[in-house]
Amino acid sequence: MESLELIGMISIIMAGATVGIGAPITAIGEGWAVSRAMGALAQQPDAAPVISRTLFIGLAMTESSAIYCFVVSMILIFANPFWNHFLSLAGG
Amino acid sequence: MESLELIGMISIIMAGATVGIGAPITAIGEGWAVSRAMGALAQQPDAAPVISRTLFIGLAMTESSAIYCFVVSMILIFANPFWNHFLSLAGG
Amino acid sequence: MESLELIGMISIIMAGATVGIGAPITAIGEGWAVSRAMGALAQQPDAAPVISRTLFIGLAMTESSAIYCFVVSMILIFANPFWNHFLSLAGG
Amino acid sequence: MESLELIGMISIIMAGATVGIGAPITAIGEGWAVSRAMGALAQQPDAAPVISRTLFIGLAMTESSAIYCFVVSMILIFANPFWNHFLSLAGG
Amino acid sequence: MESLELIGMISIIMAGATVGIGAPITAIGEGWAVSRAMGALAQQPDAAPVISRTLFIGLAMTESSAIYCFVVSMILIFANPFWNHFLSLAGG
Amino acid sequence: MESLELIGMISIIMAGATVGIGAPITAIGEGWAVSRAMGALAQQPDAAPVISRTLFIGLAMTESSAIYCFVVSMILIFANPFWNHFLSLAGG
Amino acid sequence: MESLELIGMISIIMAGATVGIGAPITAIGEGWAVSRAMGALAQQPDAAPVISRTLFIGLAMTESSAIYCFVVSMILIFANPFWNHFLSLAGG
Amino acid sequence: MESLELIGMISIIMAGATVGIGAPITAIGEGWAVSRAMGALAQQPDAAPVISRTLFIGLAMTESSAIYCFVVSMILIFANPFWNHFLSLAGG
Amino acid sequence: MESLELIGMISIIMAGATVGIGAPITAIGEGWAVSRAMGALAQQPDAAPVISRTLFIGLAMTESSAIYCFVVSMILIFANPFWNHFLSLAGG
Amino acid sequence: MESLELIGMISIIMAGATVGIGAPITAIGEGWAVSRAMGALAQQPDAAPVISRTLFIGLAMTESSAIYCFVVSMILIFANPFWNHFLSLAGG
Amino acid sequence: MESLELIGMISIIMAGATVGIGAPITAIGEGWAVSRAMGALAQQPDAAPVISRTLFIGLAMTESSAIYCFVVSMILIFANPFWNHFLSLAGG
Amino acid sequence: MESLELIGMISIIMAGATVGIGAPITAIGEGWAVSRAMGALAQQPDAAPVISRTLFIGLAMTESSAIYCFVVSMILIFANPFWNHFLSLAGG
Amino acid sequence: MESLELIGMISIIMAGATVGIGAPITAIGEGWAVSRAMGALAQQPDAAPVISRTLFIGLAMTESSAIYCFVVSMILIFANPFWNHFLSLAGG
Amino acid sequence: MESLELIGMISIIMAGATVGIGAPITAIGEGWAVSRAMGALAQQPDAAPVISRTLFIGLAMTESSAIYCFVVSMILIFANPFWNHFLSLAGG
Repeated sequence: MESLELIGMISIIMAGATVGIGAPITAIGEGWAVSRAMGALAQQPDAAPVISRTLFIGLAMTESSAIYCFVVSMILIFANPFWNHFLSLAGG
Repeated sequence: MESLELIGMISIIMAGATVGIGAPITAIGEGWAVSRAMGALAQQPDAAPVISRTLFIGLAMTESSAIYCFVVSMILIFANPFWNHFLSLAGG
Repeated sequence: MESLELIGMISIIMAGATVGIGAPITAIGEGWAVSRAMGALAQQPDAAPVISRTLFIGLAMTESSAIYCFVVSMILIFANPFWNHFLSLAGG
Repeated sequence: MESLELIGMISIIMAGATVGIGAPITAIGEGWAVSRAMGALAQQPDAAPVISRTLFIGLAMTESSAIYCFVVSMILIFANPFWNHFLSLAGG
Repeated sequence: MESLELIGMISIIMAGATVGIGAPITAIGEGWAVSRAMGALAQQPDAAPVISRTLFIGLAMTESSAIYCFVVSMILIFANPFWNHFLSLAGG
Repeated sequence: MESLELIGMISIIMAGATVGIGAPITAIGEGWAVSRAMGALAQQPDAAPVISRTLFIGLAMTESSAIYCFVVSMILIFANPFWNHFLSLAGG
Repeated sequence: MESLELIGMISIIMAGATVGIGAPITAIGEGWAVSRAMGALAQQPDAAPVISRTLFIGLAMTESSAIYCFVVSMILIFANPFWNHFLSLAGG
Repeated sequence: MESLELIGMISIIMAGATVGIGAPITAIGEGWAVSRAMGALAQQPDAAPVISRTLFIGLAMTESSAIYCFVVSMILIFANPFWNHFLSLAGG
Repeated sequence: MESLELIGMISIIMAGATVGIGAPITAIGEGWAVSRAMGALAQQPDAAPVISRTLFIGLAMTESSAIYCFVVSMILIFANPFWNHFLSLAGG
Repeated sequence: MESLELIGMISIIMAGATVGIGAPITAIGEGWAVSRAMGALAQQPDAAPVISRTLFIGLAMTESSAIYCFVVSMILIFANPFWNHFLSLAGG
Repeated sequence: MESLELIGMISIIMAGATVGIGAPITAIGEGWAVSRAMGALAQQPDAAPVISRTLFIGLAMTESSAIYCFVVSMILIFANPFWNHFLSLAGG
Repeated sequence: MESLELIGMISIIMAGATVGIGAPITAIGEGWAVSRAMGALAQQPDAAPVISRTLFIGLAMTESSAIYCFVVSMILIFANPFWNHFLSLAGG
Repeated sequence: MESLELIGMISIIMAGATVGIGAPITAIGEGWAVSRAMGALAQQPDAAPVISRTLFIGLAMTESSAIYCFVVSMILIFANPFWNHFLSLAGG
Repeated sequence: MESLELIGMISIIMAGATVGIGAPITAIGEGWAVSRAMGALAQQPDAAPVISRTLFIGLAMTESSAIYCFVVSMILIFANPFWNHFLSLAGG
């Protein structure tokens, strides 16, 4: 039984840590990009369409990092192959 | 009984740590974006609509990081599959 | 009895740590936003309404991070499902 | 008896740590806001009323973080539900 | 007897740490505010009254953080409810 | 059986840590590049095509770091040769 | 006898740490204020009286942090209630 | 059998850590180079060919660091001489 | 005898650490003040008397932090009440 | 047999750590050099030949650091004299 | 005999650490002051006498921190009262 | 036999750590020097010979630090007097 | 015999650490002073004599910190009173 | 025999650490000085002789820190008095 318990605990820890460290650090990167976009819009309002478009493409690529972290976190909680293996053992 | 206790403790720790580290670091990113928006509005008040709109879209994308953290924290407290598994074992 | 004690201790630790780390780091983000708003008001006093409005919306979104932390802290002290579970066990 | 002792010790530690880390970091955020307000007043003395008003609203929102920390600290010292529970057990 | 000793030790540690970390970090925030006030006075000597007034109000709010820390420290040394509880037990 | 359990735990830990540390730090690098691109577009809107093209090539090369991390993480969860070896041993 | 020894050791450690960390960090805050005052005097020698007066008031408030630390340190060495309690026990 | 298990675990840890730390820090260096290239293109669009060429050569040399890390990581997972040695021992 | 030894060791450690950490960090604060005074003298040589006077008063207040640390260190080496207590016990 | 196992494990750890820490930090130094070269080319396109030549010589000298690390890492994996010694002992 | 040995070891450690940490950090403060003096001399060569005089007074006060550390270090090696006490015990 | 094993392990660890930490930090110093040389060449292309010569002399002196580290690392792997001593003992 | 061994080990550790940490941090302070002197010479070549003289006096005072560290290190290796004491005991 | 082994191990560790930490940090200081010299040469090519001379004197003084570290490292490997003492004991 102990295996199941340990795998469960480690999964909880890593699920929390992955999203808890990964998502907000990504948010800092996005915060920089957004804050500079503010300055750019103030400096050259006429270029707003191209600035916005580039910003959103850039944010999308940056956001992908946070999503990788969230995906790994969800995999660890709801689709963890190691947990499933030991669960099937315990249930077998 | 011990499994339940350990899973419970780890869940409390990670629920607190995930939101306690993740949310405020996101807030720093948002603080940067907002503070630059102040400067942009002061520099070019006429561009206020486009600056505000871009700021709010950016804040929304950044805020998503804090929400990921809050969601994982709530899952760990109120819908934790590992806790439920051991609870059903203990109750079975 | 030991489970109850451990869950209690961990809950106290995480309740304090979540709000003790999360709230002041949020305050730093707000401090940046407010400090830049000072500069913006000094630079363009005529834009005070739009600057103030944007600042307060931004502060509200940032403050939400501190409130997430405070909410999790209060849940851990006054509405902790793990504590309740073990309390009912001990009382049962 | 041991539970009571441990809960007491942890409560003292977290009460001190929460306010000892949370309050001064908030003070740094406030220090930034105040220091920028100095510069703003020097740059545009005519805008003193609006700068002061915005500063005090901002400081109030920032100060709320320090107060959250102080409140949690006081709860842990004087109205700790976990301590009360074990105290009633010991006295029962 | 051991409880008393442990509670005493922890109280000494937290009393020192709370004021030893909390007060000087607050002092850094105040140092920023004061240093910027110097610059503001040099830039606009005519605005000295409003700058001084705002500085002192800001310092007072910031100083409150150091005072929270000092208060918690004094409570832990001279009015510690946990220490009193175990003292009355030992004396009872 | 113990080998399987340990290899499983270590794999979970490293899968989470690799993507949880690697992806967001990459996001910071991308955030810098995007934020500077904002400034460049505001300064020279006419050069938008060459700026965008260079930005996207640069982001692609930077993103490769996050993808290396994600790939290693996925290998550790779903195609781990060490896990497979011990699994075949346990099943053999 | 052991209690006395432990309380003594902890008191020495915290007395040194409180003043050893608290006083110099305060000194950094004061150093900032003084250094900016230099610049202010060089920029506007005619405002020397008001700059000096504000500087000394600010330094006095900042210095209070160092004095809090020194006071707590002296209390722990020469007027420690916990030490006195155990001393009276040992002597009783 | 234990040797195999330990070598396996260490290999997983180092494979993840090498790419998880090495790749994103390289990404930060690339992010700087790309972000400055944005500024350079905005400042001197006519020099785009030479700027781009130098940038891509520089990125290639920088990227080599990430590739060293990825190569070492792949060697540790799929072509580890120490693992092979102990595997042949266990199989012999 | 052991108490004496432990108290002695702790006193040596804290005496060194208090002055070894406290004095040089104060020196950094003084270094800032002195370095800015250089700039102020270069910018406005005519204000040398008032700059020097303010600098020396400021340095004296800052130096007090280093002296607090040195005093506590000397107390711990040459006038340590805890050491004296245990010495009189051992000699009694 | 144990010596072989320990030497193997340590070799894996150091091989990964040496290249995993050494290569990317070198990449940061290269990133700075490349990013400044961008600015230099934008400022003085006519000096491109001498800038490029100096950049590539500088990058070569800097890259040597990463190569030292990679060489040591490869020595530890494929030509480790300590491993060879113990291997010959075990085989002898 | 053990006391003597432990006191000796601790004295060596603290003697080295006090001067090894304290002296170079002081050197950084002095480095700042000296480096700014360079700039001041370049900006206003005519004020060299007053700049030099103030610099040397400032350096003397800063150097006092390094000398405190060196003095404590020498006391711990050559005039350590705790060592002398235990030495006289061992020799008595 | 154990001595040999321990000396071997420590030698591997220090050989990797010395070059893995020492070489890349040197590379950062070189990166700064090279990056500034770029700016200098752009600002004053006519001074290229003297700038290049000074740069290469400076890089040579800086590179000596990396070479010290590499030399010590190679000594520890291939000409380690401690390893040789114990090897001759084991072989004697 | 054990005392001698321990004192020897501690002396080696502190001798290396004192000079290994103390000397290079001093070097950073000197690096700042030298680098600013470069700028001063470029800005005001006519003041070269007074700049050089002040630089060398300042470097001498700063270098004294490194020399303190080197002296303590040499004392610990070649004139260690604690080592001598235990050596005479062992030889007596 | 054990003393010899321990002294050997500690010597290897400190020899590597002293040069591995001390030399590259010195290199950073030299990097700053060299990088500023580039700027100085670009700004005032006519002052090249005096700039170069001052730079080389300054680098020599800074390099002395790296050489102190290398000397201590070599003493610990090839002329270690503690190792020699225990070696003569073991051989005697």
